Amino acid sequence: MTKLRAALLGSTGAVGQRYLAMLSRHPTIELDILMGGDSAGRAYGEAAHWLSSEDIPERFADRKILATDPHNAQGCDVVFSALPAEAASTVEPEFAKAGLTVISEASAHRLEEDVPLMIPEVNPDHLGLLGSQRKRRGWSGSLVTTPNCTVTGLAMVLKPLSDSFVLRRAIVTTMQAVSGAGFPGVPSLLITENVIPYIRGEEEKVADESRKILGAREEGRVRSADLQIAISCNRVPVIDGHVETLYAELGRDLEPEDAVDCLNRFRGEPQELGLPSAPGQPVIVRPEPDRPQPRLDRLSGSVPGMSVVVGRVRKGLSRDSIQLTLVSHNTIRGAAGTAVLTAELMHSKGQLGR
Amino acid sequence: MTKLRAALLGSTGAVGQRYLAMLSRHPTIELDILMGGDSAGRAYGEAAHWLSSEDIPERFADRKILATDPHNAQGCDVVFSALPAEAASTVEPEFAKAGLTVISEASAHRLEEDVPLMIPEVNPDHLGLLGSQRKRRGWSGSLVTTPNCTVTGLAMVLKPLSDSFVLRRAIVTTMQAVSGAGFPGVPSLLITENVIPYIRGEEEKVADESRKILGAREEGRVRSADLQIAISCNRVPVIDGHVETLYAELGRDLEPEDAVDCLNRFRGEPQELGLPSAPGQPVIVRPEPDRPQPRLDRLSGSVPGMSVVVGRVRKGLSRDSIQLTLVSHNTIRGAAGTAVLTAELMHSKGQLGR
Amino acid sequence: MTKLRAALLGSTGAVGQRYLAMLSRHPTIELDILMGGDSAGRAYGEAAHWLSSEDIPERFADRKILATDPHNAQGCDVVFSALPAEAASTVEPEFAKAGLTVISEASAHRLEEDVPLMIPEVNPDHLGLLGSQRKRRGWSGSLVTTPNCTVTGLAMVLKPLSDSFVLRRAIVTTMQAVSGAGFPGVPSLLITENVIPYIRGEEEKVADESRKILGAREEGRVRSADLQIAISCNRVPVIDGHVETLYAELGRDLEPEDAVDCLNRFRGEPQELGLPSAPGQPVIVRPEPDRPQPRLDRLSGSVPGMSVVVGRVRKGLSRDSIQLTLVSHNTIRGAAGTAVLTAELMHSKGQLGR
Amino acid sequence: MTKLRAALLGSTGAVGQRYLAMLSRHPTIELDILMGGDSAGRAYGEAAHWLSSEDIPERFADRKILATDPHNAQGCDVVFSALPAEAASTVEPEFAKAGLTVISEASAHRLEEDVPLMIPEVNPDHLGLLGSQRKRRGWSGSLVTTPNCTVTGLAMVLKPLSDSFVLRRAIVTTMQAVSGAGFPGVPSLLITENVIPYIRGEEEKVADESRKILGAREEGRVRSADLQIAISCNRVPVIDGHVETLYAELGRDLEPEDAVDCLNRFRGEPQELGLPSAPGQPVIVRPEPDRPQPRLDRLSGSVPGMSVVVGRVRKGLSRDSIQLTLVSHNTIRGAAGTAVLTAELMHSKGQLGR
Repeated sequence: MTKLRAALLGSTGAVGQRYLAMLSRHPTIELDILMGGDSAGRAYGEAAHWLSSEDIPERFADRKILATDPHNAQGCDVVFSALPAEAASTVEPEFAKAGLTVISEASAHRLEEDVPLMIPEVNPDHLGLLGSQRKRRGWSGSLVTTPNCTVTGLAMVLKPLSDSFVLRRAIVTTMQAVSGAGFPGVPSLLITENVIPYIRGEEEKVADESRKILGAREEGRVRSADLQIAISCNRVPVIDGHVETLYAELGRDLEPEDAVDCLNRFRGEPQELGLPSAPGQPVIVRPEPDRPQPRLDRLSGSVPGMSVVVGRVRKGLSRDSIQLTLVSHNTIRGAAGTAVLTAELMHSKGQLGR
Repeated sequence: MTKLRAALLGSTGAVGQRYLAMLSRHPTIELDILMGGDSAGRAYGEAAHWLSSEDIPERFADRKILATDPHNAQGCDVVFSALPAEAASTVEPEFAKAGLTVISEASAHRLEEDVPLMIPEVNPDHLGLLGSQRKRRGWSGSLVTTPNCTVTGLAMVLKPLSDSFVLRRAIVTTMQAVSGAGFPGVPSLLITENVIPYIRGEEEKVADESRKILGAREEGRVRSADLQIAISCNRVPVIDGHVETLYAELGRDLEPEDAVDCLNRFRGEPQELGLPSAPGQPVIVRPEPDRPQPRLDRLSGSVPGMSVVVGRVRKGLSRDSIQLTLVSHNTIRGAAGTAVLTAELMHSKGQLGR
Repeated sequence: MTKLRAALLGSTGAVGQRYLAMLSRHPTIELDILMGGDSAGRAYGEAAHWLSSEDIPERFADRKILATDPHNAQGCDVVFSALPAEAASTVEPEFAKAGLTVISEASAHRLEEDVPLMIPEVNPDHLGLLGSQRKRRGWSGSLVTTPNCTVTGLAMVLKPLSDSFVLRRAIVTTMQAVSGAGFPGVPSLLITENVIPYIRGEEEKVADESRKILGAREEGRVRSADLQIAISCNRVPVIDGHVETLYAELGRDLEPEDAVDCLNRFRGEPQELGLPSAPGQPVIVRPEPDRPQPRLDRLSGSVPGMSVVVGRVRKGLSRDSIQLTLVSHNTIRGAAGTAVLTAELMHSKGQLGR
Repeated sequence: MTKLRAALLGSTGAVGQRYLAMLSRHPTIELDILMGGDSAGRAYGEAAHWLSSEDIPERFADRKILATDPHNAQGCDVVFSALPAEAASTVEPEFAKAGLTVISEASAHRLEEDVPLMIPEVNPDHLGLLGSQRKRRGWSGSLVTTPNCTVTGLAMVLKPLSDSFVLRRAIVTTMQAVSGAGFPGVPSLLITENVIPYIRGEEEKVADESRKILGAREEGRVRSADLQIAISCNRVPVIDGHVETLYAELGRDLEPEDAVDCLNRFRGEPQELGLPSAPGQPVIVRPEPDRPQPRLDRLSGSVPGMSVVVGRVRKGLSRDSIQLTLVSHNTIRGAAGTAVLTAELMHSKGQLGR
């Protein structure tokens, strides 16, 4: 397989930076074009407020940021988008219309009916929407999205439970890391020694996106899963790693060990295909009573940050319910990682590159 | 009314210190005797690792700590206990047997059937157990307990909801402050930039104690309420103030505004009697979407730290369910404050003092 | 004395909010006019992102914010300015020209030679600059400034040491609270579990402003003190309260107890005059080895937040040197508090009001 | 070279755990024997409260902890000690007497005149003390120590400055991570949103140990360097990585760039010998104005955690003075890492193993 040539929209932001880290040594994707808005024309190393403890990969530090224009991405096999929602709503369709395949982390188009909302382990068949997308929109390119950072970890746990035990209701409380708000994001004056019990728009996204991801593909659209989700989203003073408590009501009786087995055994296409960013085990269940913890578990697994870590699997109030806690890395599995994995999946299926 | 003369067991610990702060200027209770274990014989100011930003009340700094012995409390009208559970299990009955009225924050005796587990606004009639307690145990004194710090705020919200709408199930996730673990408590090495999804023994306590507090008094015992509680307890890097998300299933349909009204209007005997530590409003509902927050709301109300602050009251997944978030101060309302309020209630009913 | 009528520039920001808190129950100053830029025309309670745990004082919640225009302050005896530096550089002179007395927290004019830079306990005579200021500038009003939040606490400690022992050199390291950066200020993504060893422009300000404040007034200007200051400014994850370590080289030999006495006995004109915001003791020395701590000591003293707390007074490397640590509340003593105290001083001297 | 066989004293504590991490894949040292006190007889994985986000190396999880007894280390080439000071004072000499070479992180023996206090890049020749140590004490083994975690980073910066510019005085303020206090260490109740301006015994250690390390070896002892150090030690809410500000007075005039060059070019024997744990560059100077930061820089360099990172190199108050800020990883370079590097140095010089 030839290497994919990639461009990146919104390269200087917090999510954009994660792409640089993930793609600086990627075996099959060559990140070539960095785009930006106000930062266009400047060297990346000067324009970006670099946030990670690992330095900017050397090859990108002097790279000139190009203007956000489809012409600048000509010849690219894939365009990753780390744009904020508003910019994404107009820019991404332009790129797709110009013949480019856009994989976007933005919320703008996630719920449009012919746009796949992808977690490669969960709903690889949703890529099948792209045929009707191109036809209906008259695009030569296409647009693929990945979910909100809170949804990704949750859906990866709900999927195997749903397949094995029929999922009915999920009651969820999150404790979300500040990096989920991007940069500059949450002021320290607000979150230090505190919990903020609200994240604007987040709860609606979690419910709607989860139902779509777990839904079934039909003729040119996805029928959302028949699943009730109640969720309370909270911000806590943690840098990376969202924690979620889940109370799940299922369609069959089960013991906690059944859920543990089901989660530990879960594998998807990325694992079968041996994709470079696919963790050996998408969901890892830890037996200790006091795990998962975000600081200890966010980088677990064979591909750091790509596995969801689950713990405290225990009975609910009825025989067909279960409780557990999960941690997933919100800027890797919840953002750049799932987008890169989606590109790898499309590549291996012949939907990207030549 | 004459002033009550009080003694304090376990005076140097984190909870014990709160009593000193609350009782240093109390209008009707005179804290006279400070007791301790290893610290007995030393001056309080030297023995205690004082934690509050307010200095040790001057009158206590040089007070000599007495040994933990009922003789040292002779003549006291009430003995507050801030002992750890293990010590409480043997020490408190000794004091009660010696004719003293013990009001205890410890978990040791909370679930014993003839021991009242008190939140004065919620179950003042449970004090009626004391008659059969004395008779059955042959004590001239008596033993009263107050709940776990996580239970108190929750039960104060569940009580009015239950009275108005019949409570069936509560699904709760907590984000608890580190002061809840006492001193030295949670190592900073574990909780800094982290969430710990487990607190040993806490979840069982919340369920059992809530059911008892909301239960009905019968002949010499309390019949626990028929209420299902599922709970996930988490520790977060906050100093004071427990946050709890509640998903409640009720026996009647209701709108969020109905719940808001019901909570805001809730009053108990302490309010009717105008007890010194009774907040004007036991439960305060805030309308802002991003409240309550522990750092901002833990000291709300007319008696700082004695009101529970609720926010985000919204629909659940069915017409007879509701969601909300609450904050309560775990070392005031969740500990010393409820014990002092209990003493005030007993005093005003003639069950304490002469 | 009639009450002063006051206006506030920059009322919605973090510093502006502190003025509302301090002036909501002030005995001699009536805050009447709230001004703002983009927020003009809106109700204060809606326009401000209120940061304190105490609610917006009721009387200000519905107050309409007026445009930043000297006409809107007509009839006011004093105009407090909480403007950012850039806005202050043009707006404040306009107000002074229009006949108003402006007391400003902004850095814009602090080092201008005919502008007093005031800490009422330290350099009350610098108000004497105002005569030549009015004459030279042709203003009917006047402009007074207060120092940077890091300078205030330091200068209050340096002043008595300097008077008693002749100060030569100060080597200082600060650990500054995030509220010092205003709102939104420091992103939590940068400061959580971290120290940032740099605050832009801060070190220069501390050196220059300290020298001016400790300097002697001459004909229409201040001759800066002959004092060498080396300083390293760091940001730490603390909400309020700057910590500073000081290594001071003096002109006379001294024992630590001499310094302790000198600091504890320090009083200024505000104390002599009994001004409402004057703390009984401007500098409080604590004897415990592990104090002062920002969380425990920032609100110390008879007027919370107005005293500087010192500890760890100990020998330096020579007989004429000394080391100590200080904490001062950066948004009270380091901002609004010193400005209000300056107004009180001017009022009592007949320089404000009628 | 044959692999060294190693034992570890105090294996379950916070420092002990770092040895397991560093030695689990070490090319020339085989950690074979884990010893403990109360934990003896149990499996390591059960006895240790494991603190790192990386799991216990698999080969150690089931390893049985042996009693702290020289017989249990027979045949070992080196015994690392992570004992607390009190235990170390008696246990370590027993092991040395029994013929074992002990490399200790404990403070107990650091300042004894025939005991080398080692930083391999700084004072490799101090190992020459071991001959007279054995003779004088009649030991067949020997005892080597490594410095306090605050000293190590400081001494690595002072050494090259001292060699090039003659060091006279150092005025230092530290902001130290909580892991420096071991486990359970600093209670979160004390350090959350706070700074503690005192660490018991730390300031004396820094001064005395630095002088010894920078001193010259003479007949069977080290003559401490003639260097004045004034230091203020503070605890801050950071997990790993000590920050130190340094104001240094030297014997020669210098420009900041001279100091930068001097620090960047510093190399020691470990670098010349290419020891496995030797970082390519012991001291790395960063040019950005806002570095070093503990969270971003503590794992810098070619061997993570073994380089000291310096920044903000700038003029002092005189031509022969300089200011800078440094970060060093307190549990790697400041503890286990320096001990392991010392073993590697001794090994390569034929002082360990066969």
